[in-house]
Amino acid sequence: MKHVYFDNAATTQIRDEVITSITEVMRENYGNASSSHSFGRSSKSLIEQSRKTIASYLNVSAGEIVFTSGGTEADNLVLRSAVRDLGVKHIVTSKIEHHAVLHTIEQLKNEYGISVSYVNLETNGHIDYLHLEALLQTESKTLVSLMHINNEIGNILDIERVANLCKANHVLFHSDAVQSVGHYKIDLQEVQVDFLAASAHKFHGPKGVGFAFIRKNSGLQPLILGGEQERGLRAGTESVHNITGIEVALKSTLNNLNKEADYIKSLKQYFIDKIAKDIPKAIFNGCSGDLDMSTYTLVNICLPIPPKKAAILLFQLDLKGIACSKGSACQSGSSQNSHVLTEILSDADLLKPSIRFSFSIYNTMEEVDYVVEVLKEFVE
Amino acid sequence: MKHVYFDNAATTQIRDEVITSITEVMRENYGNASSSHSFGRSSKSLIEQSRKTIASYLNVSAGEIVFTSGGTEADNLVLRSAVRDLGVKHIVTSKIEHHAVLHTIEQLKNEYGISVSYVNLETNGHIDYLHLEALLQTESKTLVSLMHINNEIGNILDIERVANLCKANHVLFHSDAVQSVGHYKIDLQEVQVDFLAASAHKFHGPKGVGFAFIRKNSGLQPLILGGEQERGLRAGTESVHNITGIEVALKSTLNNLNKEADYIKSLKQYFIDKIAKDIPKAIFNGCSGDLDMSTYTLVNICLPIPPKKAAILLFQLDLKGIACSKGSACQSGSSQNSHVLTEILSDADLLKPSIRFSFSIYNTMEEVDYVVEVLKEFVE
Repeated sequence: MKHVYFDNAATTQIRDEVITSITEVMRENYGNASSSHSFGRSSKSLIEQSRKTIASYLNVSAGEIVFTSGGTEADNLVLRSAVRDLGVKHIVTSKIEHHAVLHTIEQLKNEYGISVSYVNLETNGHIDYLHLEALLQTESKTLVSLMHINNEIGNILDIERVANLCKANHVLFHSDAVQSVGHYKIDLQEVQVDFLAASAHKFHGPKGVGFAFIRKNSGLQPLILGGEQERGLRAGTESVHNITGIEVALKSTLNNLNKEADYIKSLKQYFIDKIAKDIPKAIFNGCSGDLDMSTYTLVNICLPIPPKKAAILLFQLDLKGIACSKGSACQSGSSQNSHVLTEILSDADLLKPSIRFSFSIYNTMEEVDYVVEVLKEFVE
Repeated sequence: MKHVYFDNAATTQIRDEVITSITEVMRENYGNASSSHSFGRSSKSLIEQSRKTIASYLNVSAGEIVFTSGGTEADNLVLRSAVRDLGVKHIVTSKIEHHAVLHTIEQLKNEYGISVSYVNLETNGHIDYLHLEALLQTESKTLVSLMHINNEIGNILDIERVANLCKANHVLFHSDAVQSVGHYKIDLQEVQVDFLAASAHKFHGPKGVGFAFIRKNSGLQPLILGGEQERGLRAGTESVHNITGIEVALKSTLNNLNKEADYIKSLKQYFIDKIAKDIPKAIFNGCSGDLDMSTYTLVNICLPIPPKKAAILLFQLDLKGIACSKGSACQSGSSQNSHVLTEILSDADLLKPSIRFSFSIYNTMEEVDYVVEVLKEFVE
């Protein structure tokens, strides 16, 4: 059977060189990075090397990178500490953020009684920048949390504009950049976010490791307490092999970014063109049909398929070896509509099935052909 | 140069079969376990298999095992939620717990104003069970947090006795079992703890993965919010390869437990005998010189070495290729005394250097000979 993996926004195949390097570190560097003897120092040095590499990619200092178990933990760390330790009383976010942000904010609202404002969205899923600006005119200590690239519809936030707005209004800015780090070059001297979350497994790295960028002197305190790892910002013995893995994955990405991005972009364009030709009634959700306004890695398509057939669509695609997703991976088993699409689609379109297809360097034009052929069978 | 790794309580060498299995999973099973397609289901099935294996080892149901990024996170999860969600107002612990417990409790005291009681310790480091019982006579909703095996001095808690005491007094019981899981058989039907924390890298598994045992219907809520992973108790894409790693490590341990424990025990006995003969003025801290009262994996020795020489002892041992530790790994770079030894040693003994040597199946009698020879050089 054919196997087409078009769910790269959920997670990605790990690069060979990442696997090789992780395996080598597991064999050769098992010391605890907190130990002062040679075994420990050798692990420590691997971690600090990884930190430097990542910091240089983002144009920040190494001390501003805090390794975590992933993007979700990084989001939790930033949001919780901002409220508990920095005195944030008001969070501005949007209803189409990842649940790692939305659910954490809801919990913080319950625990601390902070107020939460949701910025208005355009019908294409972009935020209303004027409304955002209005929301920042407040006396309350405020944090903005808006994701750089939406994981379901691929919309790109003008992160620099938001950062400047926040700076001008003396407001903190956190961005979940899980879908952009490793896919776009980000210079955090130009983009003045205070905090940012990233995850290795979205760019061909291992699962179970990510990082928070925490700008110097922010005053953030740890979510997980214990030992003094990560300069006191994240306790727990470091996962040396996974941290090496995120470094190698990011390096590979960097060294090949233009070439690989161009290739993936061409796959997406080919997919868009084929859909437009073969299933003209399909709608690209959000801005995902527009290569300038959305990430080159995904499309999210509302398909003109009647409800009866729609119910078994994902199941049938799976039977045909096609891996794709209804929304974020976390929701893919659920019968509920995506919270993102619920915000931006009309009631009529919400009745039709929407599918996210997301691409990587390991995909091919032939796979696009195959998938669109299969989709055609479902369309009336 | 010789390399002797006698710091297995800090972390352990990863078993070959664990590395092989992790590498294979990274190659073959990169799906996101939350995805409903075949790639996702295959990852999900690996995770659930690991959960079952671990649950059966502890004689609990699979749903009571929650994978975390390690023991520290598991401790944080249990302690924070016990206070926030279960309404615990009083925590009973000891001053010789791991910092993952002590620092978290201090933070919770600051955040929630809970009261904290420290159970008295005998001079050998064992808790005063009568004092513990007295501390449980309270109207406040109480949680006891006491570690199963002390990571610095190796003392074994009578965990069943404490669990029974807690049950009889309607008090919750959490145990940091990071030094015992994978080294001892633990039947959680016999030992009625409510919560327990474990970490893979202490028993030849990978760093960055552990689990919390959370007894059914406990009402615990997540520390890290977002997706619905781990039955809603721990958000974040699962580290499939690391979770497989903890399973394989535990399996290997189980299949060989008696044989391997006997071997390590014989190393420890040999070490004790040699020290008693060659450095008779050495003192075994806590119960670490008693194989019935302490774990077979470590000794902690107070050496009759004058302060001037003591200052460079660890440095010199490192130069001679010997990896050992002053206390827990987290403190090994620090010039401060171990918080554990500070509680149990006399002022005079605290002036002398104390070193923890901890063993594994990869160590040999010849290594013990070498280390004791080197130590002898330092002794007056």
